[in-house]
Amino acid sequence: MSHPYFLRVAYLGTAFHGWQIQTSARSVQGELARALRKLDPEAPLPQGTGRTDAGVHARAQGVLVVLRRVWEPYRLLAALNAHLPMDARIMNAQPAPEGFWPRQHAVAKRYRYRIQEGPADDPFEVDRCWHVHRADPLDRTAMEAAAQALVGTHDFSSFRHQECAARSPIRTIHQVRLEPETGGFSLVFEGDRFLMHQVRIMTGTLVEVGKGRRPPEELPRLLAARQRSQAGITAPPAGLWLDEVWYQARWGLSAASPWGEPVPTGPDSPLA
Amino acid sequence: MSHPYFLRVAYLGTAFHGWQIQTSARSVQGELARALRKLDPEAPLPQGTGRTDAGVHARAQGVLVVLRRVWEPYRLLAALNAHLPMDARIMNAQPAPEGFWPRQHAVAKRYRYRIQEGPADDPFEVDRCWHVHRADPLDRTAMEAAAQALVGTHDFSSFRHQECAARSPIRTIHQVRLEPETGGFSLVFEGDRFLMHQVRIMTGTLVEVGKGRRPPEELPRLLAARQRSQAGITAPPAGLWLDEVWYQARWGLSAASPWGEPVPTGPDSPLA
Repeated sequence: MSHPYFLRVAYLGTAFHGWQIQTSARSVQGELARALRKLDPEAPLPQGTGRTDAGVHARAQGVLVVLRRVWEPYRLLAALNAHLPMDARIMNAQPAPEGFWPRQHAVAKRYRYRIQEGPADDPFEVDRCWHVHRADPLDRTAMEAAAQALVGTHDFSSFRHQECAARSPIRTIHQVRLEPETGGFSLVFEGDRFLMHQVRIMTGTLVEVGKGRRPPEELPRLLAARQRSQAGITAPPAGLWLDEVWYQARWGLSAASPWGEPVPTGPDSPLA
Repeated sequence: MSHPYFLRVAYLGTAFHGWQIQTSARSVQGELARALRKLDPEAPLPQGTGRTDAGVHARAQGVLVVLRRVWEPYRLLAALNAHLPMDARIMNAQPAPEGFWPRQHAVAKRYRYRIQEGPADDPFEVDRCWHVHRADPLDRTAMEAAAQALVGTHDFSSFRHQECAARSPIRTIHQVRLEPETGGFSLVFEGDRFLMHQVRIMTGTLVEVGKGRRPPEELPRLLAARQRSQAGITAPPAGLWLDEVWYQARWGLSAASPWGEPVPTGPDSPLA
């Protein structure tokens, strides 16, 4: 028999070479697989909702694991945490319905990009934010105005890494908002799925707007150009957090998506 | 000429063997001295408001440094930060009046002890809190009730390390309060000065009350016993934060103390 469980996994990305398992580098998927196989040596590889880059953090990576025996969810959580390093933790575990896949059945995600300002880096935020050193604070109003051009369904070719393997550059961003924080603010992006480095390139470009180096009105032109070279720098990974993932409501594994469940189309559709 | 500056220093205590300079171990005072002497090889040792233990954090360690030339405060901050490791940062710098001493002229301090609960440690809070693993949450009402017995001027012999070098065990606690936080809460202690391990022993004892192992009514008896063995365990250093220090208003270096400026008496008085 195979018994699937759905996990909510949090990790401090600093000492990981990202989510995806690799032969030599330390990865979250690799550490999870190692812990899982202490409980069941034949367990298949844990499946996540998607990759995160080296240095990127997660509060809510969704992970499916499959074991050969039934586990009481709290005991599974405690047993896996006992075998995991302290920078990756199972925060929640529950039985998953047969047929559920975290990547294919995710309908929306929230990423948070944390920016801190001021003359000195906060020693408690090193590796957890992008500290932008400037005499003047970033122009938050201009950044919010510029961000609105990204909302909607667009070709994001200008905002993806040149090695991005997604077949379609079309993605939908539901909302971008700026949330004040002590010492700075977050840019919060909610969308259906994201391309490789998309949030970091959007953030790097918006920070250039915040510094006054690009006018907010330039964003529609950048999108239309469909050229990576037109957009701004790729913001560093340390500021990026995978904050939330919503799944199709029929699986009963998350709150309902605030953005409904539009069916993605095109070559990258999970249904294709 | 000697030019004194007053610094507000923040540090993540995890990789430091405490504040005080030592011959072989890494300390905050030692790292500060090293950075300072890049600017002025003859600068005297930086003076703090007091010691913190290995693993204890600070947001507001007050530090006096003396240089032979005048520095624009922001340039001094930036120059010192350029020579400091990322886990210790100068957050603020200002000229200090002649005759000011951070330890002697501090009139009150606030320590925060951060406690997290729940089935899994938050990977972002490891080394920054005490995670108390229990099925039931701690009884916060009982802890707050017990804490009130500590408020006032008492002989805290039961709540100090056996190697504490202070000549008098008499200290004044102005307030203890419980502040809710995501995933747990903080115990906030404001007082005139604190004995060695005092906050950690008070916290360890209050957590035993929160677990139902001691009744809150026991606290007055513990104080009266004046024996370390009567009180609870010493809570781990990772949860402790030096949050704020207030100085005599006449120096103009901090907000006025919310607790006034009572003059401490007895053998540990800075005026003795």
